[in-house]
Amino acid sequence: MSLFLCDYQEGAHPAIMKALNDTNFVQTPGYGEDIFCEEARELIKKAVGTDRCDVHFLVGGTQTNTVVIKSALRPHQGVIAASTGHINVHETGAIEAVGHKVLTIAGRDGKICAEDIRRYCASYYADSAWEHIVMPGMVYISFPTELGTIYSKAELEAIRGVCKEYSMYLFIDGARLGYGLKSPRADITLPELASLCDVFYIGGTKVGALFGEAVVIMNDELKKDFRCVMKQHGGMLAKGRLLGIQFRELFRDGLYFEISENAIEKAGKLREIFAGRGYGFYADSPTNQQFPILPADVYEKVRGICELWADMPDGSKAVRFCTSWCTGDEQLRELEELLDGTE
Amino acid sequence: MSLFLCDYQEGAHPAIMKALNDTNFVQTPGYGEDIFCEEARELIKKAVGTDRCDVHFLVGGTQTNTVVIKSALRPHQGVIAASTGHINVHETGAIEAVGHKVLTIAGRDGKICAEDIRRYCASYYADSAWEHIVMPGMVYISFPTELGTIYSKAELEAIRGVCKEYSMYLFIDGARLGYGLKSPRADITLPELASLCDVFYIGGTKVGALFGEAVVIMNDELKKDFRCVMKQHGGMLAKGRLLGIQFRELFRDGLYFEISENAIEKAGKLREIFAGRGYGFYADSPTNQQFPILPADVYEKVRGICELWADMPDGSKAVRFCTSWCTGDEQLRELEELLDGTE
Amino acid sequence: MSLFLCDYQEGAHPAIMKALNDTNFVQTPGYGEDIFCEEARELIKKAVGTDRCDVHFLVGGTQTNTVVIKSALRPHQGVIAASTGHINVHETGAIEAVGHKVLTIAGRDGKICAEDIRRYCASYYADSAWEHIVMPGMVYISFPTELGTIYSKAELEAIRGVCKEYSMYLFIDGARLGYGLKSPRADITLPELASLCDVFYIGGTKVGALFGEAVVIMNDELKKDFRCVMKQHGGMLAKGRLLGIQFRELFRDGLYFEISENAIEKAGKLREIFAGRGYGFYADSPTNQQFPILPADVYEKVRGICELWADMPDGSKAVRFCTSWCTGDEQLRELEELLDGTE
Amino acid sequence: MSLFLCDYQEGAHPAIMKALNDTNFVQTPGYGEDIFCEEARELIKKAVGTDRCDVHFLVGGTQTNTVVIKSALRPHQGVIAASTGHINVHETGAIEAVGHKVLTIAGRDGKICAEDIRRYCASYYADSAWEHIVMPGMVYISFPTELGTIYSKAELEAIRGVCKEYSMYLFIDGARLGYGLKSPRADITLPELASLCDVFYIGGTKVGALFGEAVVIMNDELKKDFRCVMKQHGGMLAKGRLLGIQFRELFRDGLYFEISENAIEKAGKLREIFAGRGYGFYADSPTNQQFPILPADVYEKVRGICELWADMPDGSKAVRFCTSWCTGDEQLRELEELLDGTE
Repeated sequence: MSLFLCDYQEGAHPAIMKALNDTNFVQTPGYGEDIFCEEARELIKKAVGTDRCDVHFLVGGTQTNTVVIKSALRPHQGVIAASTGHINVHETGAIEAVGHKVLTIAGRDGKICAEDIRRYCASYYADSAWEHIVMPGMVYISFPTELGTIYSKAELEAIRGVCKEYSMYLFIDGARLGYGLKSPRADITLPELASLCDVFYIGGTKVGALFGEAVVIMNDELKKDFRCVMKQHGGMLAKGRLLGIQFRELFRDGLYFEISENAIEKAGKLREIFAGRGYGFYADSPTNQQFPILPADVYEKVRGICELWADMPDGSKAVRFCTSWCTGDEQLRELEELLDGTE
Repeated sequence: MSLFLCDYQEGAHPAIMKALNDTNFVQTPGYGEDIFCEEARELIKKAVGTDRCDVHFLVGGTQTNTVVIKSALRPHQGVIAASTGHINVHETGAIEAVGHKVLTIAGRDGKICAEDIRRYCASYYADSAWEHIVMPGMVYISFPTELGTIYSKAELEAIRGVCKEYSMYLFIDGARLGYGLKSPRADITLPELASLCDVFYIGGTKVGALFGEAVVIMNDELKKDFRCVMKQHGGMLAKGRLLGIQFRELFRDGLYFEISENAIEKAGKLREIFAGRGYGFYADSPTNQQFPILPADVYEKVRGICELWADMPDGSKAVRFCTSWCTGDEQLRELEELLDGTE
Repeated sequence: MSLFLCDYQEGAHPAIMKALNDTNFVQTPGYGEDIFCEEARELIKKAVGTDRCDVHFLVGGTQTNTVVIKSALRPHQGVIAASTGHINVHETGAIEAVGHKVLTIAGRDGKICAEDIRRYCASYYADSAWEHIVMPGMVYISFPTELGTIYSKAELEAIRGVCKEYSMYLFIDGARLGYGLKSPRADITLPELASLCDVFYIGGTKVGALFGEAVVIMNDELKKDFRCVMKQHGGMLAKGRLLGIQFRELFRDGLYFEISENAIEKAGKLREIFAGRGYGFYADSPTNQQFPILPADVYEKVRGICELWADMPDGSKAVRFCTSWCTGDEQLRELEELLDGTE
Repeated sequence: MSLFLCDYQEGAHPAIMKALNDTNFVQTPGYGEDIFCEEARELIKKAVGTDRCDVHFLVGGTQTNTVVIKSALRPHQGVIAASTGHINVHETGAIEAVGHKVLTIAGRDGKICAEDIRRYCASYYADSAWEHIVMPGMVYISFPTELGTIYSKAELEAIRGVCKEYSMYLFIDGARLGYGLKSPRADITLPELASLCDVFYIGGTKVGALFGEAVVIMNDELKKDFRCVMKQHGGMLAKGRLLGIQFRELFRDGLYFEISENAIEKAGKLREIFAGRGYGFYADSPTNQQFPILPADVYEKVRGICELWADMPDGSKAVRFCTSWCTGDEQLRELEELLDGTE
């Protein structure tokens, strides 16, 4: 039975595997100073619409979040995030492990809004004991969020405004960036998103690569010595070429967006499958993660192929199904049969 | 005008000043290895009712919390605390700065309950992704809390039970310990409290000393090399004698409890002053911190001598008044005049 | 022109590439909980000669060193290493970044000896101010070392003895383990090496894999919650399967040792090439790294294909040539031509 | 028998004790925001010769070193120090505990020289693998050093020059600053020393106070939010007034320098006592620490009143005697008798 547990259940897109095979015996220096990385950096800059940014490749998301945040903040600063944010919930305290508090704001559907951030900061700076409280130095959001939702351009602009007002950096975790940008509800392009933040990353692990996240640093203040902090945190891959080769494939001819589109299309069909059978949803996600709420007996049918997300008060189960770059129609058909089976 | 801003507005109890003066030219080795510290440790062990504990002296509360927590936890563990807990709110992220997440539980009147802690832990260990989540390794509570409330013996026993169940240490922040133990509502003694936790401290800074907190380690697992972690964190006072001299005075003839009682008595009168004038309270505190809610115009009269605690929805102000070991009747009289004045 | 800059200039052994291709569309759960990792763990346990060890897969060496050391030490402890040790010199302070001092001992040819370690520890414990000094909690050595040298079984036993004497863990960095074990001068087997230390790792990145290090924990004390610390440090690969697939190939039929042997054989020939032309060596390495000392004009011929290691007082240059699993005779021939060329 | 073990064996100068007694019942706000601290800051600025500096009070030296260094450095940077420097040897790894490597340079008599620092930095920046090596971001020196020696103005200017050349901060640990400035060999004033560094501190603990170090920040870049880092590290004393009261006394009428002079005068006599008896010295210290080398039998006479510093190859013992603000002629006479006594 096909799995929809997460969006990194398979290896990589065949084009990437081919490129890795083809270049396997090319000799290069290590640590991302090879020609493949150089090419990939140029392609990404082109996709981002400016060459006034720095691009670095890391292996995974937790590492990337940690290095970006550690590199940007001073010791007494923390990072604002949704209480459901990945750095707050699912990184075993990686951010705290490098010294910084995650300052949580209750979000709605995984998103935090400019007004709540402003209120948080205003309250901080109004407090006579502010020196005794962690200073917000950065806002961390995910695009899409852990619940598959996405920010509108207007929402991002508003958050950007608050960040400027209170001298905070805006960092966008794009572990699933492609799935966000290709959502039918997205009203923002990659260059626009880039221009609205100080640093973000383009997730490869969940979008067609074996692994890899491409950090794009827009703000000059954050560029200096970033590689040193990467290395210190074990985030500089010895055979850095592997990251360059993969991102070169993803950004050479728009593969990244093309395969993102497949995930979105399949997610739409998957949503229909559940909606058509009368099930509601835990979150209104327009991206590749879908959260149907299933009666207990239906849940039993799909247990093991999706992730249990939350136990609902009425005994039903909210679950997460992920589609991805490689989800096929056949898998959706299998799922329908499973749901409709009498077993 | 007298201040009720906090419980450390003055220097030290005269007996302590006298002892510091009297011993000023006695030569001793440094770092707490002097005879005064030795005597103080013995006196505290006696008060705690067992000599199977280790006693260490540190200068202040933030430092003490940090050293105790850092020394006890493994890297991936965090410490459960009330969301209003001092380590979560007012130490500029000191715990995160040494690598550990503060895991917050919403409390009631500053207290967290065994049931909520159990639920938190049960949920952690039931999560299939537990390795990706910070492991609760310790429970931190304050006695009394930031809102002046205290735990009953039964409540502590219940929390202790959960800690055992889930292999967590119980750490009691006793920055105001004397004020808690001498509260008319307290149903627990110092030896009983000690026996219910793994480590706690007896606050001196807020209870008669110039400065100083006496950490009492009950659990053998936490004893080894504690002084090394103290030193590493800048918590080993060069002239350690100063701490020994002060705690020797506080515990020689019960001074610690005697002066705590004064604070409680005065807090009772202070509460009457406000209650008698018809004001309600933000928290039902039976200790030295009192939180009357005052109309805006009354607040204007006392602004500057108490701390603004919270803006209430109706425009009135919750404030904090602290009494202490040295609050006198004269000061309360002044306060009454101020409240009744037409100014 | 072929490069001898380092031992990770190419991709992976063809058998590994094939396995990655063949399994590319197999769906598995993430984070190392897949069948490939499970198989690889079993194969490694077999090679190590005991199933009473835990095996974990990480991506790179700096990360692995950091996670192992952080997981094992208490806050006030440091790790003894040769002053030339990788953790002391080439990890941008990764160990200090997680709070631990690297305690350096001057080595000989990259190795430290039991006697010097004993002297260091004896001096520490004899110091009346020991609490003010970082406590040695672990000994870190590399097999082979940064200079290609290897420890004899007797040397390891002696170091092991000192570690027991002073309650320190022994951690062996095996980034190039295969090249050490297959050295003609090695008098120790993998099971013997494993039994002499508390934790070590089997390097894949430099020995045939795209990337990957297999940590083997021998001492029960170090096993608990190791994965949590991995995750916290960004060391748990989302598609953990990639590590399992690679190590499964390496340890299925002895490939790891077979390809290590190739590197050693080629290194022997390479040494001959330089020795035969009358050049001396900076270190007497019996493994895959060779350090000829070349006259300035000869150095000019090979500049760019090897690493400059040290400027010698007489103006000549010590350089490093690495062979690896994929070094071929053709490359050595090219090198000879280059050296003998009149250009 | 009088002790010469260290320069903090007694309480405080009587003028300080009197001031603490006199102000004991004055009510003030906490955390250094009281009038005593304000006055002390103004007096120190006057002594430093500029009001364009920030002055902060902390309790002890380890804490001060940690906060200054942590606040100034970025994650990948380390601090250059003499291998005998206090931060390298006697703070249980406090600097590493907050993430920074101490980069040691072998000094002479406790001092490091501009040329060695330049060589270190030049070598760092010339290394093609510099990103893998800890970047020197600060130079830490002590005035006087751990061996009682002091830097000349020319030496400090030269070090300052290297710091500018390589964008490093210069931090002077002045735990014994008064004893250095009043040395007959000192050719520098407090304002001159201040103008040559980015940040330094004026030690109180060893020079007449109960405790306290006054950090003076000269460089604007280091001023922002320093108090937040203090608080985070447990370095903000609740009753901050105690520090203000003490430094106000020390700097009101030159008491700091006057009592420093006493220590220097007595150290000169003490040196004579040993030199006159034919003993050599381990270091040529012109300040309050003296390091005579004593035959084993003579050492037995003074064992316990001085600190054993080093075992000499010939069996004799280098020891440290400290004089201080309160050393009297009587104590020196006692020492002479002890040395001349027949047991």
